[in-house]
Amino acid sequence: MRLTRYFLPTMKETPAEAQIASHRLMLRAGMIRQASAGIYSWLPLGYKVLKNIERIVHEEQQRAGAIPVMMPTIQSADLWRESGRYDAYGPEMLRIKDRGDRDMLYGPTNEEQITEIAKAGLKSYRDLPVNLYHIQWKFRDEVRPRFGVMRGREFLMKDAYSFDIDRENAERSYNRMFVSYLRTFERLGLKAVPMRAESGPIGGDMAHEFLILAETGESEVFLDRTLADLTLGERGLDYADDAEMAAIRGDWTASYARTEDEHDAAAFEAEVPEERRVTARGIEIGHIFYFGTKYSEPFGASVVNAEGASVPLHGGSYGIGVSRLVGGIIEASHDDKGIIWPESVAPFQVAVVNLKQGDAESDAACESLYERLGAMGIEVLYDDRNERAGGKFATVDLIGCPWKVVVGPRGLKEGTVELGNRRTGETENLSADALVNRLAAQFGHG
Amino acid sequence: MRLTRYFLPTMKETPAEAQIASHRLMLRAGMIRQASAGIYSWLPLGYKVLKNIERIVHEEQQRAGAIPVMMPTIQSADLWRESGRYDAYGPEMLRIKDRGDRDMLYGPTNEEQITEIAKAGLKSYRDLPVNLYHIQWKFRDEVRPRFGVMRGREFLMKDAYSFDIDRENAERSYNRMFVSYLRTFERLGLKAVPMRAESGPIGGDMAHEFLILAETGESEVFLDRTLADLTLGERGLDYADDAEMAAIRGDWTASYARTEDEHDAAAFEAEVPEERRVTARGIEIGHIFYFGTKYSEPFGASVVNAEGASVPLHGGSYGIGVSRLVGGIIEASHDDKGIIWPESVAPFQVAVVNLKQGDAESDAACESLYERLGAMGIEVLYDDRNERAGGKFATVDLIGCPWKVVVGPRGLKEGTVELGNRRTGETENLSADALVNRLAAQFGHG
Repeated sequence: MRLTRYFLPTMKETPAEAQIASHRLMLRAGMIRQASAGIYSWLPLGYKVLKNIERIVHEEQQRAGAIPVMMPTIQSADLWRESGRYDAYGPEMLRIKDRGDRDMLYGPTNEEQITEIAKAGLKSYRDLPVNLYHIQWKFRDEVRPRFGVMRGREFLMKDAYSFDIDRENAERSYNRMFVSYLRTFERLGLKAVPMRAESGPIGGDMAHEFLILAETGESEVFLDRTLADLTLGERGLDYADDAEMAAIRGDWTASYARTEDEHDAAAFEAEVPEERRVTARGIEIGHIFYFGTKYSEPFGASVVNAEGASVPLHGGSYGIGVSRLVGGIIEASHDDKGIIWPESVAPFQVAVVNLKQGDAESDAACESLYERLGAMGIEVLYDDRNERAGGKFATVDLIGCPWKVVVGPRGLKEGTVELGNRRTGETENLSADALVNRLAAQFGHG
Repeated sequence: MRLTRYFLPTMKETPAEAQIASHRLMLRAGMIRQASAGIYSWLPLGYKVLKNIERIVHEEQQRAGAIPVMMPTIQSADLWRESGRYDAYGPEMLRIKDRGDRDMLYGPTNEEQITEIAKAGLKSYRDLPVNLYHIQWKFRDEVRPRFGVMRGREFLMKDAYSFDIDRENAERSYNRMFVSYLRTFERLGLKAVPMRAESGPIGGDMAHEFLILAETGESEVFLDRTLADLTLGERGLDYADDAEMAAIRGDWTASYARTEDEHDAAAFEAEVPEERRVTARGIEIGHIFYFGTKYSEPFGASVVNAEGASVPLHGGSYGIGVSRLVGGIIEASHDDKGIIWPESVAPFQVAVVNLKQGDAESDAACESLYERLGAMGIEVLYDDRNERAGGKFATVDLIGCPWKVVVGPRGLKEGTVELGNRRTGETENLSADALVNRLAAQFGHG
C-alpha cells in the first residue's frame, strides 16, 4: 500500500480521554475512531490488525476441531426467558423492542441460541462431540465504558460451544480448547497464563481464564514463575490424542496461578518457593468453562445414548476477546515511540521509507523494493509522502511495523539501503538484493 | 471434512413457511436456522458459502482500490439527526435506548457514520480519491420478513463510500465500482444486469441497480437481450485507466434495461427491436449511486482544493447484499434435487461418496482420495456415514457440490471410480489417479 493512497489519519497530540497506552496509541495511529461512548469504528490500519487476529483464531479453532457458524446479533428475549437469564442479566444487556413491540436484545453471549441449534440438530451420541463457534459482534452496555477497545460496549468475540454425551467426554473437549488457546496466544506473540477461574454453577476445576501480564492489567495476579516460562514452541499437536491434550493441560495447571478473586495467600506461600512467586497485573483475553447441563436441561437438548436412553447434552463455552486482543497486544508490546507489533498480527510487516521523495534514484529504488517484497506476499507500506524524514520515521514507529527499510540518496550512492528492526532498534546497511533475500527468509519465502 | 464429524442437519420435508426455492433449499440443506422472524443463524454449510461470497467481494473491492474498514452496528441517533434522516427514516429503523436513556439505532446503512470519519481524516484534495468500505451486519425492521435471507431483518451487506473533490472525479470513482461489480458478479457465477435506478435527490444518470434474472424475482424487468449476452470474461482490467472504465460502463449502459419502477414502454419499443426485447423478473443484488454533497454539506465535510478553497466532498455509495446473494445464487441455480453451486462459492467443491462404508477396500480408496484432493487445497466433503447409497446421493445433490466422486466395490474391482458433475449430470468412470489429475486441472493445480 502506498501511503498517499491510504487512509491513515494519525494524530500528533495525545487525546485527553485516553487513560491507557493502547487506547492512546490506537487513536494516535489512526486505528480506530470513537463513534459513541464505548463504540468504535475500525479504520483501515486497525481493521487489518483485527482481521489478522481473527484469522489466527479461526485457524486454531478449526485445527482443534471446532466448526464455524454465524449466529445473529439480535436475539429474541423469549429464548433468554427459557434459561431464566433474561431477568437475571443486569442492565449491561441491551434490551430492544422491535416494531411489533416484541422484546429483543443485542446478544452479550450465545449459550441459549447455540443450545437451541444443538437441540434441533443433534439426535444421537454418534453425532458427538460437536464444537460450534462463531466470531461475531456482541454488546454489553457498560455503565462506564473506557480503556478504548479493552472495555468497549460493542466488541468482537470468538465464542465456541462444545456438546458432549457426558462429563468425561466434555473434559476432552475442554482440554482441546485449553491447548488450542495456548497455541493461539503464542501465535499472536503473547505470553498468556491460564489461571483458575471462579467455577460458577457447576463447581470443579474446569474453568480457566487466560491472562497476559501487563502493567495496566485490570486484575492483580499471583503465579509461579515456572508458568511464565512454559511454551509450546514448535511442538506438533495431535488434537485427536486425548492423553496428550490432558498432559498439556496438566503441565499448565500444575503450578499456582490465580487472579485476585481466586487468590489464596496461604496456598501461594505453601506451594510456591519465594524466589518463584510473581505478583503482577493481568489482562483477561480468554475464558473457558464447563457448564454441564445448565442450558441443555431447560431447553430439553438431549440425545440418545448408546443404551437408547435420552440424556441431556454436556456443554462448555470458550471465549476469546478478539477486539480486546488488539488492545491487549499493544499493552504488552509498545514503547514511547509507539506500537511494536508481533509479525503475525502486524498490519504491514515492512515499511519502506523514501528519504527523498521526488529524487529519481530514490523513487526508483523504493518502487522496486515495494514491488519485489509485495510479490512475495509481504504486506508493505510505502511511505511515499512529500514529508521530512523525521515525520516519516515518527509515523512508521508509531504504527509499529516490525521492519523498516530506509532508502535515500546517500546510501544508494554506496549501493545500500538500511534495514531496521522495530523491536530491537538494530539497523544494518545492505544491498537491495541482500535485503530482499533477508526478508524473504524472515517470512518463509527463502 | 468427514460428514460424521460435521454438523449438517438436513431436512427431508419441505418446511411449510418457505415460499421460494432458496428459502426451502437453505433450510433443507441445513444452511440456516431461523432464530426469530427474519433473523437467521448461519449453520456450518451456510456459513462457508457466505464466507466464500464475502471473500470474493473483498478481493474485488480492493482490486478496484477500495479500502476495508469496520464500522459498528450500533449508531448514535444524534449522527442521524445531523443529516435529518433520523425522523425521515421509517419504522424499518430499529430504534434503541441504551441504559443511559440515549437514543441509539441499529444501522440500516452508514452514510452518516462514514461522512463523519471522512470529515475527520480528509483535509486536502491530495488525500483524494478515497473509497472506504466494510462488510457488516445491518438491520431493517421489515414489517413482513419473508423469503428467508432474501428479505431478512438482520443481513450482511457490503457498503462502500467514495469521496472526491468534484463531480467529475466522483464519476471516475463511480465507474470503477460499476466495473468492479460486473467482475464481482461474474466471479460469483451470476449474470447480473445493471439497470438505471431512480436517481434520488441528485438527478442525473449515476444510479444503477444490478439485478440477476430469476423467475422468483421481486421486480419485473425489461431489457435488451444484448445486455444479457455481454461478459467481461477473462479480460484484464486496469482500474487506474479512467477511459477504460468509462468505456466499459458505456458498453453496459448503451442498451435499454430498467426495472418496472423506471420502465418507459414507449422508449423500450422505440429503442429495442422486437426480437431483442426481454421481459423477465429480477432480483436486486447491488445498488450504486452518486449522492454529491448530500451528506458532506450538513456534516461540514470539506477539503481544501488546489486553489486553497474549502469545498465539500462529493460522495457516492455502493452496496452489495452479501447474505442476500446466497439466496440469489440459489434462485438462479438449482433444480428439483437441490442446489447447484457455482464452483467459486461452493461450500465443498467435491463430495466423496462411499457406497459401502466399512468395506476395507472402499474405505481405503475413499480415504486416499479424500487425502489427495484435500492436499491440493480442494474442499472435500467425505460422506462416511453408514447409510444407503440413495440417502447419500440425495444429500450430496441437495447441498449442491459441483463434483461428486462415487467409490464402491464394483467399480474398484475394475480399477475405477465415478466422477459426476452436478450441473450437467454427466458421469464418467476413471482410475483414481486420472480423477485426481482431472480435478487438479479443474481447480488450477494441474
